[in-house]
Amino acid sequence: MPNFSNTKPINKRIQIVALAILTTATLAFSIKQSNPKEPMYRIAKIKVDPAQVDQYNAALKEQMTTAIAQEPGVLSYYAVANKKEPSEITILECYADTDAYKAHTETTHFKKYKETVKNMVTSLELQDVNLICAAKQPNQ
Amino acid sequence: MPNFSNTKPINKRIQIVALAILTTATLAFSIKQSNPKEPMYRIAKIKVDPAQVDQYNAALKEQMTTAIAQEPGVLSYYAVANKKEPSEITILECYADTDAYKAHTETTHFKKYKETVKNMVTSLELQDVNLICAAKQPNQ
Repeated sequence: MPNFSNTKPINKRIQIVALAILTTATLAFSIKQSNPKEPMYRIAKIKVDPAQVDQYNAALKEQMTTAIAQEPGVLSYYAVANKKEPSEITILECYADTDAYKAHTETTHFKKYKETVKNMVTSLELQDVNLICAAKQPNQ
Repeated sequence: MPNFSNTKPINKRIQIVALAILTTATLAFSIKQSNPKEPMYRIAKIKVDPAQVDQYNAALKEQMTTAIAQEPGVLSYYAVANKKEPSEITILECYADTDAYKAHTETTHFKKYKETVKNMVTSLELQDVNLICAAKQPNQ
């Protein structure tokens, strides 16, 4: 008969190693899932009172340029208007992470913008998005 | 009585100068209106068969990176997917001008992309847009 006297401790050690691997993997997955330190992308779809488009665009530009100048965590903004209906505006926003976005919403310039445009904006839809691909020329 | 003998020629000269100014201004306006040599921005809103999102995204990335590498007139692409529904895709496209866009649609890589995705895309909406403002950090 084979000697089984050492079998149990070996199995036990395998179980412990397997458990350790599983625990580490689970922990790593949990950290990754909750890690806010990755770029945050969002699309804002905004409709503005057609009579106040120029004033709205001026306030938007001021907010954007101030945020980029003062907040390293605000990475980029692209704001465009529908050619057929310039009061329909789309903004692609990118922040360093969710913390950078939260900090942005507490700034004086962001609060000033929200106050300025509150009677200009007729609808606002925010869509959180994931980046599929960004590709651009070196000079862009 | 005042001497009117020189009045008519002076009025005539004023009329000629006014006509010349008007003609120049009209011509300049017409040239500006028809000048295609300014950046062309467009938003593409695409819905993809949810079962084929990964294949679609791969084809999209290949098209974008090839176009940027081979066509100086294709300036930038940003493609993002709705976090709640990854088959809903938005692309912000920028070309040097409308000629650059037309040339792009004739390229082998663009035609290959259209052929590859023709049975993946369930809806496509193109919206020509004007840039209101782009602002970004120097490293973006």
